[in-house]
Amino acid sequence: MKVLCIGFGNVARSLARLLIKEPSRSRFLPGLDLQFVGVTSASRGSLENAQGLDLSRALQEIEESGRFQGKNPDFSKLNSLEAVQQLDYDVLIELSTLNLNNKGKPALTYMRTALERGKHCVTANKGPIAFAYQELASLARKNHSRLLFESTVMDGAPVFNMARTALKGCRVVAVEGILNSTGNYVLTQIEQGTSFDEAILKARQGGFAEADPSHDLEGWDAAAKISILARVLMDAEITPTEVSRKGFSTLDLNEISQTVSAGTRVKMVARARIDSGKVLAEVGPEHFPINHPFATVDGTGNILRIETDLMCPLTIRQESPSVKDTAYGVLNDLIELGAGG
Amino acid sequence: MKVLCIGFGNVARSLARLLIKEPSRSRFLPGLDLQFVGVTSASRGSLENAQGLDLSRALQEIEESGRFQGKNPDFSKLNSLEAVQQLDYDVLIELSTLNLNNKGKPALTYMRTALERGKHCVTANKGPIAFAYQELASLARKNHSRLLFESTVMDGAPVFNMARTALKGCRVVAVEGILNSTGNYVLTQIEQGTSFDEAILKARQGGFAEADPSHDLEGWDAAAKISILARVLMDAEITPTEVSRKGFSTLDLNEISQTVSAGTRVKMVARARIDSGKVLAEVGPEHFPINHPFATVDGTGNILRIETDLMCPLTIRQESPSVKDTAYGVLNDLIELGAGG
Repeated sequence: MKVLCIGFGNVARSLARLLIKEPSRSRFLPGLDLQFVGVTSASRGSLENAQGLDLSRALQEIEESGRFQGKNPDFSKLNSLEAVQQLDYDVLIELSTLNLNNKGKPALTYMRTALERGKHCVTANKGPIAFAYQELASLARKNHSRLLFESTVMDGAPVFNMARTALKGCRVVAVEGILNSTGNYVLTQIEQGTSFDEAILKARQGGFAEADPSHDLEGWDAAAKISILARVLMDAEITPTEVSRKGFSTLDLNEISQTVSAGTRVKMVARARIDSGKVLAEVGPEHFPINHPFATVDGTGNILRIETDLMCPLTIRQESPSVKDTAYGVLNDLIELGAGG
Repeated sequence: MKVLCIGFGNVARSLARLLIKEPSRSRFLPGLDLQFVGVTSASRGSLENAQGLDLSRALQEIEESGRFQGKNPDFSKLNSLEAVQQLDYDVLIELSTLNLNNKGKPALTYMRTALERGKHCVTANKGPIAFAYQELASLARKNHSRLLFESTVMDGAPVFNMARTALKGCRVVAVEGILNSTGNYVLTQIEQGTSFDEAILKARQGGFAEADPSHDLEGWDAAAKISILARVLMDAEITPTEVSRKGFSTLDLNEISQTVSAGTRVKMVARARIDSGKVLAEVGPEHFPINHPFATVDGTGNILRIETDLMCPLTIRQESPSVKDTAYGVLNDLIELGAGG
């Protein structure tokens, strides 16, 4: 399978390490043979090689100098859009940075272009799915290609792969969860007596908070994820900006440590439910008794509860996910493509 | 798809109701068309009709008189083994009663026979999978048929469908869970001040305890389930009798209510892990702090935690499952067969 990868940040590098570290790739699936024919990025340069580029060298160059080197025989002058339009590949892996302001573009444009060319798309980028899942899914059907995005919600935890195979015939009527790792980590730290600023600093040091953490803390990340869940599992057309959103700025941080001594926990919960035939979505703080499953989710953990019309409620919980889990989710989607042909 | 169903107890009847209540079966999958060509039972008589038997009438006869009637035009003199050997069907649904003493027989014999004839097998019966998964899986491969058993562990909750699609490439290194609903219900009742005998009575009235509850309370059900998990997810050849097992008879019931006031919970946990290259499995009581995910599982709830070498630990939790969930798991397996061709 020929792969074009857009973006070479943490997730792409973690994926590359996973593939290089397992030289017997056949471990992942009999017959899964991945060949990277292109890697492009907005600021690190691009690589291309129709016979398969040298992934180890790509990784080494980025780790040593932060960008691909002109003397690399795979070096390319193509930008991402040109690569998506011109290269010969089977699957586009879209791992560029989420851009909510531009409603998922330019990633959305790359994916539209790839699907129109009949290429499969795998993405960990929330934007295109949160803003345009139905359009992309329809494009994929029309062009006999597949659209997979396991890592957009709860990293590699099986949300969509699971729903696709194990919830067939069910109608999802509600989803709710703790979906933002950074926010939950900061809440857990504050409960333990750490100051807000110190908690942010620790989150940055741990590699799970951006320089500007407001995207996570004001609920935008969770809003994008609940939009994806509402679109994919409940066929709602809702965008992150339409999600009712209350972030950390609405919280009384002193109250949080008090709630702990009172035996409750404050958690940032994302929720989508059907109200009078319409899907409503919201993100905001909620109080839970200490013996509630959501109250037991500490640190960077995530949890998702799914209600359907046929089964009893089902909950998936993930402990301390890292970028390796996101990379594994992408790999699992690639394996799914390899198996499905 | 022509279906032969062995057993017409609670699960089979719940499945029949699910199919009859949804006359537009196409809801479950475009093109899934189920035709019951045979239903056999050990004590309720049998039915057969190569053109598809009348499932509503079958259900009505059992509900009204506890057995199929001789005047039913579908009435048959075939016993289960004869039906498995002689009828023309695509998939065997094995729903007879679990028999651990006979190491999964006679269900195991029915499934061997069906697989050897190249028929698919779907089962909610733990015995054949707990004693002979590897043999049956190998028979299925050899005969180009499929073996599915989602409902054997955690009713219809997606354990195996999920693992098959979403844990590809991972090696499972440990599983642990609360897998027996009756036992957990009785523990929760005792914690709330109900006596042991009263708790058993309430469990029977709720329909989730047998006349002789020792199969559940002495850990045999959980031992069968952990054997299945160890076999399927960790490729161990372990039988329920080889599982180290401590049941309710090893518990000090007075202690249970005391642990609640001390802020902990006693739970019956089934566990399989790799120790010096060998898979070890055990079932027994364990204490958990009140904020542990396992401590939050009340009543008939179930939980399963899976550790792999590639992903962070993953937990699946199911609230208040009923026989309808078991039936849904069987239906999901049938949908999977319908999709896979």
